[in-house]
Amino acid sequence: MSRGLFIGRFQPFHKGHLEALKWILGREDEVIVAVGSAQFSHSLKNPFTAGERIEMIWLVVKELNLEGRVIITCVPDTNSMHNLWVPLLKAWLPRFDRAYTNDPLSRRLLVEGGVEVHSIPFFNRETYSATHVRELMIKGEKWEHLVPSVVAEYIKKIGGDKRLREIYSTRQ
Amino acid sequence: MSRGLFIGRFQPFHKGHLEALKWILGREDEVIVAVGSAQFSHSLKNPFTAGERIEMIWLVVKELNLEGRVIITCVPDTNSMHNLWVPLLKAWLPRFDRAYTNDPLSRRLLVEGGVEVHSIPFFNRETYSATHVRELMIKGEKWEHLVPSVVAEYIKKIGGDKRLREIYSTRQ
Amino acid sequence: MSRGLFIGRFQPFHKGHLEALKWILGREDEVIVAVGSAQFSHSLKNPFTAGERIEMIWLVVKELNLEGRVIITCVPDTNSMHNLWVPLLKAWLPRFDRAYTNDPLSRRLLVEGGVEVHSIPFFNRETYSATHVRELMIKGEKWEHLVPSVVAEYIKKIGGDKRLREIYSTRQ
Amino acid sequence: MSRGLFIGRFQPFHKGHLEALKWILGREDEVIVAVGSAQFSHSLKNPFTAGERIEMIWLVVKELNLEGRVIITCVPDTNSMHNLWVPLLKAWLPRFDRAYTNDPLSRRLLVEGGVEVHSIPFFNRETYSATHVRELMIKGEKWEHLVPSVVAEYIKKIGGDKRLREIYSTRQ
Amino acid sequence: MSRGLFIGRFQPFHKGHLEALKWILGREDEVIVAVGSAQFSHSLKNPFTAGERIEMIWLVVKELNLEGRVIITCVPDTNSMHNLWVPLLKAWLPRFDRAYTNDPLSRRLLVEGGVEVHSIPFFNRETYSATHVRELMIKGEKWEHLVPSVVAEYIKKIGGDKRLREIYSTRQ
Amino acid sequence: MSRGLFIGRFQPFHKGHLEALKWILGREDEVIVAVGSAQFSHSLKNPFTAGERIEMIWLVVKELNLEGRVIITCVPDTNSMHNLWVPLLKAWLPRFDRAYTNDPLSRRLLVEGGVEVHSIPFFNRETYSATHVRELMIKGEKWEHLVPSVVAEYIKKIGGDKRLREIYSTRQ
Repeated sequence: MSRGLFIGRFQPFHKGHLEALKWILGREDEVIVAVGSAQFSHSLKNPFTAGERIEMIWLVVKELNLEGRVIITCVPDTNSMHNLWVPLLKAWLPRFDRAYTNDPLSRRLLVEGGVEVHSIPFFNRETYSATHVRELMIKGEKWEHLVPSVVAEYIKKIGGDKRLREIYSTRQ
Repeated sequence: MSRGLFIGRFQPFHKGHLEALKWILGREDEVIVAVGSAQFSHSLKNPFTAGERIEMIWLVVKELNLEGRVIITCVPDTNSMHNLWVPLLKAWLPRFDRAYTNDPLSRRLLVEGGVEVHSIPFFNRETYSATHVRELMIKGEKWEHLVPSVVAEYIKKIGGDKRLREIYSTRQ
Repeated sequence: MSRGLFIGRFQPFHKGHLEALKWILGREDEVIVAVGSAQFSHSLKNPFTAGERIEMIWLVVKELNLEGRVIITCVPDTNSMHNLWVPLLKAWLPRFDRAYTNDPLSRRLLVEGGVEVHSIPFFNRETYSATHVRELMIKGEKWEHLVPSVVAEYIKKIGGDKRLREIYSTRQ
Repeated sequence: MSRGLFIGRFQPFHKGHLEALKWILGREDEVIVAVGSAQFSHSLKNPFTAGERIEMIWLVVKELNLEGRVIITCVPDTNSMHNLWVPLLKAWLPRFDRAYTNDPLSRRLLVEGGVEVHSIPFFNRETYSATHVRELMIKGEKWEHLVPSVVAEYIKKIGGDKRLREIYSTRQ
Repeated sequence: MSRGLFIGRFQPFHKGHLEALKWILGREDEVIVAVGSAQFSHSLKNPFTAGERIEMIWLVVKELNLEGRVIITCVPDTNSMHNLWVPLLKAWLPRFDRAYTNDPLSRRLLVEGGVEVHSIPFFNRETYSATHVRELMIKGEKWEHLVPSVVAEYIKKIGGDKRLREIYSTRQ
Repeated sequence: MSRGLFIGRFQPFHKGHLEALKWILGREDEVIVAVGSAQFSHSLKNPFTAGERIEMIWLVVKELNLEGRVIITCVPDTNSMHNLWVPLLKAWLPRFDRAYTNDPLSRRLLVEGGVEVHSIPFFNRETYSATHVRELMIKGEKWEHLVPSVVAEYIKKIGGDKRLREIYSTRQ
C-alpha cells in the first residue's frame, strides 16, 4: 500500500489544496496531510491554530468520504533550524513513500534527507493561494468562493476573517 | 455532533486503550485520539515516535472501519510547564466537548481549564497497562497478546521490542 | 479589592505610560504592571533588560508613593505562539479582574481567554510613544522630556541612549 | 541605597522565609524577592504558579507595611544550563548589591558571576521548610501554622493543598 | 600563552576572514575561531551548517599548517536574548584573553561582560564580505576568487552555491 | 582521507578516553572529538562547561602533537528528543565516515541514521570511568592518576574538584 505526504501550512485550506489532494490520491493509496508550523496562530501569516486547520481538512475529507484514505495530523516548525525539519517529519509522521511539494527549499531538504519528491500541478495558482485568501479577508472582500464551502462556513462560524482583520490592525 | 477527547501517550497502544476507545465511541459521535508527548522517542518511557504511535492507532481504526469517527493527531508535552498543557491542547486539537481520562493531574488541569472531564472504566488495569507491556518487552517475555494483533505485527516489523531492549541496556 | 492588569513592553516607560497607570489607578484598587517580552534586550525594539524596566517603574512608583497599590513584575513572550500568551499571563501573574490595553491583538487574545478588557484613553499618542522615544535616542535628539524625570536620570546613568545608538550602528 | 537579593522558589512562602526576609531587611534598605523557577507549577516540587507565589508574598508584604522596601518579581529557571543562571538573574532583576542564600550551588554560581553572597541564619530549619510543608499537605496533616496566616488563608482559598494531593495521587 | 577569540558566522569563510585570522595570529599565541549561530543553515543568511563551516576553516588551517595555534569550535545564537550571548561564549568556549570584532553590538555586549575587545583592520571590506559572496552565488556570478581556494573547492563539491539559489527561489 | 567520530560527554576526559582516541587514530586519518551535552555544566553528571572540556582535550592533543589529526568541537543534547540527535550531529559536525561508541542507545540511533558504527575496546573500564572519577572527587579521594596529567593540572587550577563537592552538598 503506497502512501504520499502532502505537507503545508494550510492557512487556510483552499480549493487549490483540495485539487492537489485529489491529484495525489489519484497516485497513492493513502495520503498524510500534515499541518505544518503547528505551534503558531493569531499572526498575519498563520492566523489559524493547528486544531482549526485540522478541523477544516477533516470537514472536507468527511464530505468527500475520504476518511479511509487520508491521515490528518500536524508537525511544528523547527524555528529556522532547517537541517532538523526532515528528521522531525520522519519522527512525527507515519511512514510515507514519497512527498509532494512545489516549494524549492522543502524539496531540497527532503531530497537531502533521502526522500523521493514529486511536484504537484498548479491549479490556478494566483487565485488559489492562501496568501491571496488572507489578503481578501483583510480587505473585507469576498474570499469564500476560493475555499471549499464547508471551510468557508467553518471560518465564518469561528470569526476567522474578523480575527485576521484585528491582527492586521495591530501596530507592529 | 458530539466529540470526545481521548489523550494518552500510547507507548504502545494496547487492548485497554482499544476498549476505552470503543467505550467512548459508545458515548460520542466522534473521538479525537491525541498522541501526547509527541516529541519524545527512544527512551524507556517513550520508546516509539509520534509517527509510529499514529500508525498503530490508524491500523486499529482501519481494521474496525472507524475512520469516519476517529481523528488521530498528536501534541507535544510542555516540558513540565503544566499550566500551559490545556491551552496547548485547545490550540493543537480540533474542537472537543468533553475529555476522557483517569489521570488525576490531567483531570485537574482540564477542569481548571474549563473542560468537562469523564472517567473511563478500567479494563483489566494491571494486565492492560503500557508500562507492563514495555516491561515484558524488556524481559523478552510474551507481550503480543496484550495489544491488538495489527499493533503487535507492526511493532515486530519495525523491531520495536528489540529497540526497547537496547535502550534498556544503555548505561544511564 | 479590585485589581487591573497593565501590560506592556515599556521600552522605555514614558509619560504616556504614567498617565495610563494613573488613569487605571482611578478605576482599580491595585494595578499589576507587567513588563512583557522579559527575555529580550539590546535590540532596536527592546533595548532595555526586564530588570532595567522594572527599575524604571519602581523609581516612578516610589516617587509617587504608590508602592502599596502597584505590583511590578515581568513575563516572557511566547516566541510567536500567540495562543499561549494569555495562559502564560494567568500563570505568571497574580489574580487580576480586568486588563487594560489598546492593542487589537492583545485585546482579542485576552477576550478569547475569557478576560474582561478595557481601553485606555490616549495621552498625546504621537508624542508619548516608546517608538518615538527610541528614535530620538538614536538620532541623538532630546528625548528626556518624554519620560518621567527619574526615568530619564536612570537611563542616562546606565548609558541607555548610547547603547541604543550602538545597537543601531550594527550592521544587520 | 543598598539592595539585597533574596531568591527562592517559595513553594510555598513559609515562616522561615519571612524570618529571613526580615533579617535581610535589617541589613539592606531594599530587598528584591525573586520567585525562581517561574515557569513551573502543578508538580510535587512546584505546586504553585509564579503568580500564586507572588500573591502570597504580596499579601505578607502588605500586612507588614513593607511595600516600599520590597520588590517582588520572578525569574524562570534555565533548564539545567546552570552557567546561564546568574546572567539571567542580572538581566531579569533590577540592580542588587548582594545576594542572600544558603544553597551551596547557588552561592558558587553567584560567586563565579562576581556577586557578593551572604548566608542567612536558619530559623528552625527542619520545621520551616517548604518540603516539609508540602509533605504535610500531601498527608492531610496540619501545615497552616508553618506559613504566615495570610498565606494559609490564600492557599486554602485556591484549594492549594487539595491540588497537591491530586498531583501526588497521579501515577508517574 | 595568550589566546584571542575570533567570532563570526563565516557564511562562508572568505579571504577577508583569512586576513583577519592571520592578523590576530600576529598578536596572539593561539586563536579560537568560533562559528556562531551554529544551529542555523539552509537560509539566505545562513546557508551552511555549522559542520560545513568548521570544515571550511579546518581546510584553510591545515593548508597553512596552523593546526597547533587555532582552535575551531562552534556556539549557538541565543534567539535574540542578547544579554545571554557573552555568558554563553564564556561557557561554550575555552578560556580567552581578548576578543576581536568590528561589530558594534558584539563589542558592547563583550565589554558589558568584562571582555577586552580589539578591532580588526578591514581588508577590502566591500569585496571581502560574506553578504557579497552570497549575493554573487545567488546571481550565478563568479564568487570563487573571494574565498580561499580550498573553500571554493569544498563549496562546489557540496553544491553550496546551488543550494543557495534553491533557497532564494523559495517563496517566502 | 578517512575520518572517525568519537563522541562523549568527557566529564572529565580521562585516560580511558585517551586510549580510545589513540586506538581510533590507529584506524583513521583524522578524528572528530565531539563534546556532547555542551549546554550543561555545574551539575553532578555534568560538572564542567563545554569550554572547559574542549580545553582539557586541546591540552592533551597538543602534548601529543596530534593537532593536525584531531578536530575538537561540541554539540548540544536534544533534551530527550532522541530522534533528532543524529541529525543534529550531522548538521553540527564536519563530515565523518564512521562513528565509534560502546553505548547501545547511541549505536542504535546512529545505525537508524545510516551511520556505520564501530565498538571501542575497553581500557580498564571500571577504573577509567568518568563516573568513577567524579565519585572520587566528591569523596575527596585521589583521582588525579586516572586522567592525563595535563588534565589533572587544569582541573585543579580551575578548582574543578572543589566545584563538584559544592554541587554535591547542595540540597536537591
